[in-house]
Amino acid sequence: MSKKIRVGAIGCGYWGPNLIRNFIEIPNSELVGVADLDQKLLARMEDRFPQIQNTTTNYRDLFEMDLDAVIIATPPQTHYTIAKDCMEHGLHVLVEKPLTLNSDEASKLVKIAEEHKRVLMVGHVFEYNTAVLELKQLIDSGELGDIYYIDFIRASLGLFQTKANVLWDLAPHDISILRFLLGEDPLTISSTGMSCINNGIEDVAYTTFTFPNRILAHIRSSWLDPNKNRSVTIVGSKKMVVYDDLEPLEKIKIYDKGVEVIRRTDTYGDFSFSYHYGDMTAPYYRFEEPLREECKHFLDCIENGKQPRSDGKNGLRVVQILEAADYSLKNKGIAVSMNFETNEITSAF
Amino acid sequence: MSKKIRVGAIGCGYWGPNLIRNFIEIPNSELVGVADLDQKLLARMEDRFPQIQNTTTNYRDLFEMDLDAVIIATPPQTHYTIAKDCMEHGLHVLVEKPLTLNSDEASKLVKIAEEHKRVLMVGHVFEYNTAVLELKQLIDSGELGDIYYIDFIRASLGLFQTKANVLWDLAPHDISILRFLLGEDPLTISSTGMSCINNGIEDVAYTTFTFPNRILAHIRSSWLDPNKNRSVTIVGSKKMVVYDDLEPLEKIKIYDKGVEVIRRTDTYGDFSFSYHYGDMTAPYYRFEEPLREECKHFLDCIENGKQPRSDGKNGLRVVQILEAADYSLKNKGIAVSMNFETNEITSAF
Amino acid sequence: MSKKIRVGAIGCGYWGPNLIRNFIEIPNSELVGVADLDQKLLARMEDRFPQIQNTTTNYRDLFEMDLDAVIIATPPQTHYTIAKDCMEHGLHVLVEKPLTLNSDEASKLVKIAEEHKRVLMVGHVFEYNTAVLELKQLIDSGELGDIYYIDFIRASLGLFQTKANVLWDLAPHDISILRFLLGEDPLTISSTGMSCINNGIEDVAYTTFTFPNRILAHIRSSWLDPNKNRSVTIVGSKKMVVYDDLEPLEKIKIYDKGVEVIRRTDTYGDFSFSYHYGDMTAPYYRFEEPLREECKHFLDCIENGKQPRSDGKNGLRVVQILEAADYSLKNKGIAVSMNFETNEITSAF
Amino acid sequence: MSKKIRVGAIGCGYWGPNLIRNFIEIPNSELVGVADLDQKLLARMEDRFPQIQNTTTNYRDLFEMDLDAVIIATPPQTHYTIAKDCMEHGLHVLVEKPLTLNSDEASKLVKIAEEHKRVLMVGHVFEYNTAVLELKQLIDSGELGDIYYIDFIRASLGLFQTKANVLWDLAPHDISILRFLLGEDPLTISSTGMSCINNGIEDVAYTTFTFPNRILAHIRSSWLDPNKNRSVTIVGSKKMVVYDDLEPLEKIKIYDKGVEVIRRTDTYGDFSFSYHYGDMTAPYYRFEEPLREECKHFLDCIENGKQPRSDGKNGLRVVQILEAADYSLKNKGIAVSMNFETNEITSAF
Repeated sequence: MSKKIRVGAIGCGYWGPNLIRNFIEIPNSELVGVADLDQKLLARMEDRFPQIQNTTTNYRDLFEMDLDAVIIATPPQTHYTIAKDCMEHGLHVLVEKPLTLNSDEASKLVKIAEEHKRVLMVGHVFEYNTAVLELKQLIDSGELGDIYYIDFIRASLGLFQTKANVLWDLAPHDISILRFLLGEDPLTISSTGMSCINNGIEDVAYTTFTFPNRILAHIRSSWLDPNKNRSVTIVGSKKMVVYDDLEPLEKIKIYDKGVEVIRRTDTYGDFSFSYHYGDMTAPYYRFEEPLREECKHFLDCIENGKQPRSDGKNGLRVVQILEAADYSLKNKGIAVSMNFETNEITSAF
Repeated sequence: MSKKIRVGAIGCGYWGPNLIRNFIEIPNSELVGVADLDQKLLARMEDRFPQIQNTTTNYRDLFEMDLDAVIIATPPQTHYTIAKDCMEHGLHVLVEKPLTLNSDEASKLVKIAEEHKRVLMVGHVFEYNTAVLELKQLIDSGELGDIYYIDFIRASLGLFQTKANVLWDLAPHDISILRFLLGEDPLTISSTGMSCINNGIEDVAYTTFTFPNRILAHIRSSWLDPNKNRSVTIVGSKKMVVYDDLEPLEKIKIYDKGVEVIRRTDTYGDFSFSYHYGDMTAPYYRFEEPLREECKHFLDCIENGKQPRSDGKNGLRVVQILEAADYSLKNKGIAVSMNFETNEITSAF
Repeated sequence: MSKKIRVGAIGCGYWGPNLIRNFIEIPNSELVGVADLDQKLLARMEDRFPQIQNTTTNYRDLFEMDLDAVIIATPPQTHYTIAKDCMEHGLHVLVEKPLTLNSDEASKLVKIAEEHKRVLMVGHVFEYNTAVLELKQLIDSGELGDIYYIDFIRASLGLFQTKANVLWDLAPHDISILRFLLGEDPLTISSTGMSCINNGIEDVAYTTFTFPNRILAHIRSSWLDPNKNRSVTIVGSKKMVVYDDLEPLEKIKIYDKGVEVIRRTDTYGDFSFSYHYGDMTAPYYRFEEPLREECKHFLDCIENGKQPRSDGKNGLRVVQILEAADYSLKNKGIAVSMNFETNEITSAF
Repeated sequence: MSKKIRVGAIGCGYWGPNLIRNFIEIPNSELVGVADLDQKLLARMEDRFPQIQNTTTNYRDLFEMDLDAVIIATPPQTHYTIAKDCMEHGLHVLVEKPLTLNSDEASKLVKIAEEHKRVLMVGHVFEYNTAVLELKQLIDSGELGDIYYIDFIRASLGLFQTKANVLWDLAPHDISILRFLLGEDPLTISSTGMSCINNGIEDVAYTTFTFPNRILAHIRSSWLDPNKNRSVTIVGSKKMVVYDDLEPLEKIKIYDKGVEVIRRTDTYGDFSFSYHYGDMTAPYYRFEEPLREECKHFLDCIENGKQPRSDGKNGLRVVQILEAADYSLKNKGIAVSMNFETNEITSAF
């Protein structure tokens, strides 16, 4: 590593400071400038991170700082304009999830990245999480057998947004995990929910997906739950796995429980016990901070011309799926399909 | 109490023995006869409960035993025929949930009960559970504020049935709780799921309901989950409640957490923290066995000519809702409405 | 098995009914008679178990019932007199723990059993518990490595006794498990505690044991704890195990964590991280009711002339250890040794 | 606040960086210099905290930096020499726990602080923890009733030290909490334990205390436990409290359970149910970082000439109690008393 990659940050509200801290701490990058509309936030950043060289309330000032890349952690409705502007000024871009709030803008960003040969990466941080990598390994190795269904819960008494609903806020994580685990896009999507607090902004949503090979997936998303809950349950024909992100040590538990189809006896007392229990194992994994892995991957892609795992196209797919889910949510949960080439949503009937 | 109520039991497979034990232990009833197709089960019952006076493999033999009432714990597809037969022979009937496997049969049973002036009660045992009564009290007293949504989970590595899917097996409990808590029938119902093990018999289902006053409800039903889970979460505008049936002591936890709508600040860093935390309380309740309460209620209705809390009409409503949910499940989760007078299901669009 | 073993029960207050139920349900025994001073308890037993043939308020009436054996579940201060009387009348005896409330009486019972060639067995039910058998297997197989220490907690908001303190009530279980696991008697014993509620009857006690091979053990016993807790932690040089009796399924968790002695670095920042983490496994065991296993073992010993696992001598040892612990408890926790031949307690200094 | 308090740090291994971070972030202090024997640790500090103005491998260089105060986070065996030196050079001192590894040195430091009129404060961080302050409030207000006993567990698979045993490493926290809660010193102390890994350095210890008013306390300290555990249970005559430091939100749970002394009935079935259950409440507290509160308190004492809550005398008492406990530990758990004036340990018999 000869020269440090010069990084600028746009947005330092909720998530931006975590990105800033990482690019300061990683040896082969330096955090050159930070932009935010709010002077107070900028002052707080300067105070906390003396390594920051410049701050500005106009992100376009960053274009004068001889940067290689920017990280964008602004509200999602601004992602398209800022990311486009940055790529057109020759910068590689790491943008927070969701990539945009609609598929057309996401498609355009993918095209712009290609035209300008810039790295466009989306902050789907769970694709860099050791636990998720282990889940994928459990699926791909066949250890779980055929996958029957995957159940996600992401709920807490949460941060509310006023421009995007709970799907756009929380489900990008689960959808990116789901696509990463299965390596497929969903055939159909349906979503039901309710806007309890803010009229028109759903804060609770239940979304169902069907995938090829008769795999079912379901995501429960809620900003309105008394208990924090971040879990993924994968049920396979051989084993079952629960990933609980809130467990301090034993995040992944593998259940050697199977189900056997047995004949029922023909009595009034009619139940057929047709499962078997087995051991539970919680393997030990050494965890790195997932965000650190994500940031290092971004730098690696810039230095070595690699395509990011969570590249623009990946980000586009997640946005397309969100758009379809949101359409279903607004239409009484009707099952829809997304044409991933044309961004068209059609009823799945 | 002068004379003991003479009770017969039909079906002593999985659940029947619990009913039998209760009617033996309750002072003002006696368990006169037990019928089951399986001789071995009958022998086991005689061995375990010497108080049983007669056993038979033909339930119609019970009609010769001068009974007042029967309890029916046979497979659901047989409920209609047996319950009808018993009422027509002048017996009061307590039948296990679900009342029947279709609305037409359930409607007929309700009519037969009226015509013969017999008590027809369905074993919706959770309506006799102290915890559920307390939840209703919390809602009705206004302590929770406006109800936003109710989330049910009923999952385990479970008992499989081969004639009825997971909805018909597990969801009757949740639907009866839901109707009991809200005192309303749902406006729309949609359900998605998958048959993983038995082709055609869904073992996993996700069902959404809308109720009057913009209340949302969701039931997750699964026979295929590594962990047993029986919980109800009620989110209100003032407080939130979680009822976890598997907790040995602190089954109900009340969270004094609310959400306040606050103005967002207009920066790149865009989240509005708009909730407040508060105390959590787990009130102490003295629990009676819910099934004991249910059985005592049945006897009370017989003795004093009362209408059961979970009467035939209640059981019919649950069957109607299940039928609508099942229809949606078979039709890609389309939102449907049930006409509770005519048993007609219509698309909710 | 030709003839059923004829069993009588003395005492049907708290624990007696569980024994009665088991001897009724096990095919090769019959429950002939029940004695208790309290008529009401006897009536309740007759009501619940019609299989009981006789009841009496005078336990000596049982001697006229042609019994083979008795089970004694009376208050511990009465064990000696009743057990002696029964053995002298030719009956085999299963007596609840603790065998007696002092070593001299326990020694005499052992001698009487030998003289009359009767089975004398103590209800150390945990020695018949699948989980404890698995713990022993883990130790004996060497899987845990050298045993460093064993920590017991047995606490709850409990049943209080007025003749015996918490040591005599709760610790017999832990001491019998400890002796069973290690196959050794303790070298020294010390115990500290307090009588919070009843003057003179300790309701909280902390007891430490040293065993050969520098193994430490500690038992926390409490009738006064807001949470129920029943756990055993075994720390070995290779692995660690936690047995939590209150877990419904995963009662035993094996931690593949070890400790390596490493050299410390010599800086102001002085800590040496010298452990390694590893997988956790919760093996699946099929559990039988431990009390059922205990009762079957008692019958097996009678039929086949076997020595019980928890025989009189075993019960004597537990009483001797309790006596020593109680002496320490009354003497500011001084470490003492018990001479198991002479019942003499000496200071361990 | 006019002038910032100039702070130096000695030791930046395990805990030092946390103190450094706080004195950097608190507005009215600045972190002028850091000393450590290890150049690599110093380089890491400079990298992480560019706000640090000077570093040195010789702590006496700090005396040339016009400091007001130092924070000492070196191994405990060095505390005495360094703290003495610093106070004699006119600096206020915040030293990590334990103050020293023997009472005589601790006594001398207290005297030196008085003579030089310097603030001498010990890092008993739990005395600045919101949860502990709430526990004290619960005791002092009488809400718990009379205190019966307090049970501490502090266990994990831990950091090992080679100069001081687990008592000196972990128990200072619990002893400082205990003294803070009860406002008393213990009458007697006894401790038993074992050195499992390092010969001569106990890694497991069980320590019992008696306090005035017949209050019992017990501390379980372990570096060798598969599960991390940090809990305090306080049992009073009216209520019981559990403080679980590892719970993310509901750290304190108050149990409205009491015990009533009732007369026993005189039957063979002998148990007296003499407790009552009640509600459990987990009050919501807003938590500040306890270390931040501690650091601010230190600065406040310097600026305003206040005596610290955890002053030198407090630190001395904790060391005296540790010394007595360690004496007992080395002498088979004999109960001892400490003469807090003369540092003399006597047998409690």
